[in-house]
Amino acid sequence: MPENNPTESDNSGRDAPGIMRRGGFYNRHSLPQHEAASYAEPLLRQAAEAVAAPPGGQPIVIADYGAAQGRNSLDPMRRAIGIIRRSVPDTVPISVVHTDIPADDFSALFTLIENSPDSYLREVANVFPFAAGRTFYKRIFPAASVSLGWSAIAVHWLSAAPAIIEGHVWSPRADPATLASFARRSARDWRDFLAHRAAELRPGARLVVIGGASDEAGDSAANGLMDMANAALRELVAAGCLGADEYRRMVIPTYNRTPAEFAAPFADGTASGLRLLHGQLDVLADPILARYQETGDLDAFAASCVGFFEAAFEPSLFSALAPGRSPDRRRSLETEFRDGLRARIAADPQAAGCNWRVYSMLIAKDA
Amino acid sequence: MPENNPTESDNSGRDAPGIMRRGGFYNRHSLPQHEAASYAEPLLRQAAEAVAAPPGGQPIVIADYGAAQGRNSLDPMRRAIGIIRRSVPDTVPISVVHTDIPADDFSALFTLIENSPDSYLREVANVFPFAAGRTFYKRIFPAASVSLGWSAIAVHWLSAAPAIIEGHVWSPRADPATLASFARRSARDWRDFLAHRAAELRPGARLVVIGGASDEAGDSAANGLMDMANAALRELVAAGCLGADEYRRMVIPTYNRTPAEFAAPFADGTASGLRLLHGQLDVLADPILARYQETGDLDAFAASCVGFFEAAFEPSLFSALAPGRSPDRRRSLETEFRDGLRARIAADPQAAGCNWRVYSMLIAKDA
Repeated sequence: MPENNPTESDNSGRDAPGIMRRGGFYNRHSLPQHEAASYAEPLLRQAAEAVAAPPGGQPIVIADYGAAQGRNSLDPMRRAIGIIRRSVPDTVPISVVHTDIPADDFSALFTLIENSPDSYLREVANVFPFAAGRTFYKRIFPAASVSLGWSAIAVHWLSAAPAIIEGHVWSPRADPATLASFARRSARDWRDFLAHRAAELRPGARLVVIGGASDEAGDSAANGLMDMANAALRELVAAGCLGADEYRRMVIPTYNRTPAEFAAPFADGTASGLRLLHGQLDVLADPILARYQETGDLDAFAASCVGFFEAAFEPSLFSALAPGRSPDRRRSLETEFRDGLRARIAADPQAAGCNWRVYSMLIAKDA
Repeated sequence: MPENNPTESDNSGRDAPGIMRRGGFYNRHSLPQHEAASYAEPLLRQAAEAVAAPPGGQPIVIADYGAAQGRNSLDPMRRAIGIIRRSVPDTVPISVVHTDIPADDFSALFTLIENSPDSYLREVANVFPFAAGRTFYKRIFPAASVSLGWSAIAVHWLSAAPAIIEGHVWSPRADPATLASFARRSARDWRDFLAHRAAELRPGARLVVIGGASDEAGDSAANGLMDMANAALRELVAAGCLGADEYRRMVIPTYNRTPAEFAAPFADGTASGLRLLHGQLDVLADPILARYQETGDLDAFAASCVGFFEAAFEPSLFSALAPGRSPDRRRSLETEFRDGLRARIAADPQAAGCNWRVYSMLIAKDA
């Protein structure tokens, strides 16, 4: 059974002032996704300490599931390698394999790994980076070949949106029947994820998953920002800039699971061969909002929020645009959308803040 | 010592009619790079037949060095896997790792592998694709981990151009001192390539390299096309569209080695631990020119030649453009260059044909 150790802030809502005050502590000018990984540092340490050299001179394989462009992987990979090297000598090679869907920008990832001063390749020997361009809802690795798995802020992306969402783009705002279809897809995807990892992990290996989550009430704490994005899109429809059919197809294919939903496959036996050693829900400070509260710079805050939204969610939304749109007409539409979103954020910065929930898990493959 | 088995066409020049008549035979609507790999099919077969299951249930690793976007890798990888599976059961996993420089389009590669009906993933089990984003002039894999290496039409790309080329962009047109600097860089790069592969290959493993080559006289048979490209660029300089400094920096960082240059490290002992079992020089038919000779469609021929040049060489040349150029000004310059190249090709199609030389090698790591 998972040990749920909620922090003091678990049940705080988006507007709870207690959360906001934590902002200074986390004021590191980093993205929310980056912030999230720091909560799981103790779990990563435990997982890395469990890694032993495989038999027969085989490399240790670390899998980074859902790496995106790698920015938020450098730190945890470097920490994990450092811990492994305390007990496993340099003569045992370590392969780090970053996975994501084929459309990911692997050039950016490889360039960062090769060139960044923060790369895990600095100051270590016998470490080799690779990538796999395949969804983690499929098998990626040979059986029993992965010694350590890591996945940060990735498993909330579903294999696909199971339905369109009438009048909105964000699944928590869907009608009950549509929301239920998202929940079913989410449950199936999470079981698939675990089944494939169970096959790939070596006996006794550990997997750390930091999942974009909701609290037990289903609140992911991003509804404010998502309502603003949705309103900006609907305004474009009303103005005739965005087709009603295009808007209708727009959906962010994510589902932020509750702790109970994350824990379910371990409890009901469908996560065959895997045990949930530890699970904890944390509520993240919003580093963008925290900076605004220190500087009072509303323009910078709104621009940062729009930038975050643009990087994380725009590609999903704008993939719904009619294929016949010219690049110029796409660009002008994106610009108008961002202007509309920025204006709404600036009008109510508190409501735009996102105290994302993350559920961090330490999972073990049976030895 | 290498066994050089020149074909009947080895010493034929670009304009030799005997070569052109072979065009019908190779009329498969494929790129010259694709064509090249077919010459090495017997070598690939021998190499794949030498693959045995590694001890301890480890995966068989096939390395595809310099894969580009993967189009020309599907066929040889599928053949190799088919041959390996005759002696190695499905229970032994096979990992196929495609390598290229970080800037490569790995998304295109992964998408092709996942979706193409020609992918080696069709009709086989327990095969896993990966990528490595690192130059093959460095170590890419853990020691003694690769069971089969393959590299097709990639090693003529140098680690970097060692010098600019006065008045031209193509190293065979350089003055003797500059050409010598390319030859030195080429020799060093080839030794580096072999040294790293020697470290990565398992004892007894095979490596097949199909190298873009020159004949023993140093003729790569592309001088006609390259002269046209150079003339088109100089015309843009004269017209004031391309800066003289930009043109001066333009260089295609390749060197097509002679058979003797390819064989040298094996003869002088610097390819430590590797033996050249077989080397052969072939002269390729030009599939684009062959199609033109069948159809008489000059416009289609010129367009295909420009397309080939654009894909293979334009990125190198246009990386020299001033960083301050706007995307629009880059695009218009590229269009003007292609128009100028197309006109020159159409005016003398025979001279634009490229009967590329390839030197194919079967290399063994000492057991």
